[in-house]
Amino acid sequence: MTDYFIGIDGGGTSCRAAVAASDGRILGRGRSGASNILTDPDTALRHIEEAARLALVEAGLAPDLLSKSSALLGVAGNNVGDAVSYVSARLPFQQAQIVSDGLIALQGAVGDADGAIAIVGTGTIFIARHHGNLHYLGGWGFQVGDLGGGARLGHAALQESLLAHDGIRPKSALTASILDEFGHDPTRVVDFARAAHPGEYGRYAPRVVQFAADGDPTALRLMSEAAKHVDDALDAIVDLTGGDGRLCLLGGLAHVYPAYLADRHRNRLAEPLADALTGAVALAVQAFQREAAGP
Amino acid sequence: MTDYFIGIDGGGTSCRAAVAASDGRILGRGRSGASNILTDPDTALRHIEEAARLALVEAGLAPDLLSKSSALLGVAGNNVGDAVSYVSARLPFQQAQIVSDGLIALQGAVGDADGAIAIVGTGTIFIARHHGNLHYLGGWGFQVGDLGGGARLGHAALQESLLAHDGIRPKSALTASILDEFGHDPTRVVDFARAAHPGEYGRYAPRVVQFAADGDPTALRLMSEAAKHVDDALDAIVDLTGGDGRLCLLGGLAHVYPAYLADRHRNRLAEPLADALTGAVALAVQAFQREAAGP
Repeated sequence: MTDYFIGIDGGGTSCRAAVAASDGRILGRGRSGASNILTDPDTALRHIEEAARLALVEAGLAPDLLSKSSALLGVAGNNVGDAVSYVSARLPFQQAQIVSDGLIALQGAVGDADGAIAIVGTGTIFIARHHGNLHYLGGWGFQVGDLGGGARLGHAALQESLLAHDGIRPKSALTASILDEFGHDPTRVVDFARAAHPGEYGRYAPRVVQFAADGDPTALRLMSEAAKHVDDALDAIVDLTGGDGRLCLLGGLAHVYPAYLADRHRNRLAEPLADALTGAVALAVQAFQREAAGP
Repeated sequence: MTDYFIGIDGGGTSCRAAVAASDGRILGRGRSGASNILTDPDTALRHIEEAARLALVEAGLAPDLLSKSSALLGVAGNNVGDAVSYVSARLPFQQAQIVSDGLIALQGAVGDADGAIAIVGTGTIFIARHHGNLHYLGGWGFQVGDLGGGARLGHAALQESLLAHDGIRPKSALTASILDEFGHDPTRVVDFARAAHPGEYGRYAPRVVQFAADGDPTALRLMSEAAKHVDDALDAIVDLTGGDGRLCLLGGLAHVYPAYLADRHRNRLAEPLADALTGAVALAVQAFQREAAGP
């Protein structure tokens, strides 16, 4: 039987950990650096251990309790078997489970009940729990997916600026602002676009959001096209779940979309119950208490 | 004063040449291999010379007349200064000019009059001549341009198939056909998309065209969205030119689009007067006879 339960929220920029007693009450938290198990598994392992130790310390517990703890980790890339095997074999815990970052976010947002989340950040993914079954929609990445995400929104703004430059679509303050940045030289936009990663496209998303808030017609159209993609995905979630339960928007654009979504979805939106780290702790307790109580 | 005028239509898969007397009458034609001045300038130079020699031979002329001829070359990448300088310095002609492949296509299609072409192939570009001034719209490549082109159409079909897989958009025979090819495994679609060049996306365009012809609702929607982009660009051409002169569709999708364009554009469409090679010859005669007659 394990002494403590540790939840880990492992992200590309930081790793957060929390330790709980068997009643699920969080006793302490810790934070360290990037923990991307795909691009740098060894650094991820170091930061996972560091964050977990700091959580134990904050809880007033001995750091060597790590090896007597049960941990549940929510990470991006949990569907890549090689990375998971490598990391799993080297974790400092008594036992551990690796799940998706989306799943701990869902657990945090809706708790144990049925419900759904739309993570609208650089990319987009939609996750629902219905009668205990999980459904994942979207999340296929920038190139042929992630519609409604910040990278696609930024991409649309660049494309729109070239169309405005050519007189194919109306010029606006948004397209002028982007063309200004590239010296009104379309070839510079093209050169940027050829090499840009999703995050670099995504850096234009806040500008679209801002210009839309100021009433720019092009920005408003791009926002409404992006929101239509989110509406479509939420409709699919409703088809799967009957629309039962809490619906939460998470991610960097979560505060932006409510104004643009269709009424049928906006009216259902609720604040998340808790964050992804809290979700990870709850799932850790569930997974390993259930295991301990099992046959 | 030059003896003969040579027009060159240099493309990524073949190079075509034609030789004309000073009255512009074509005396002979020749054809050789790829002549992409950007990716392989030395091979391009060899194939340009080979095609030109074959044209002289077909005309019953001595191949060494090359060095007494004036040539005009229409090539992709004519706006990339380094490549043009390299090739220009090594051409076997008495004198030569390098222009865009689009310009010789325009000249072939509309002759000396005002008019416009829409080249709808893997990519898209729109070129108009109005009161002697040239206007280029679009043509910025797959990543942030080329809307309505075959690569973007194929890309849209892949994206739509993932949305259908997730239940976000309706399934159709088109999306089923594409998902079948990838074993109904979205990660295989994503892997393909991550590495695909525009030409590889473009290989899905004929499938969209075919399914649309068979009445597939998804394919019809994709075709109509693509045609809307072409309509928008043609509207911009009308804004610039008043809609005067011949309007021709060229490129691999030229036979497809008339059925999908807005009436206002479809009703203006005309067959091209001649091909791009003929346009190159005409421009060669114009450029160098004018020069010879100049001060």
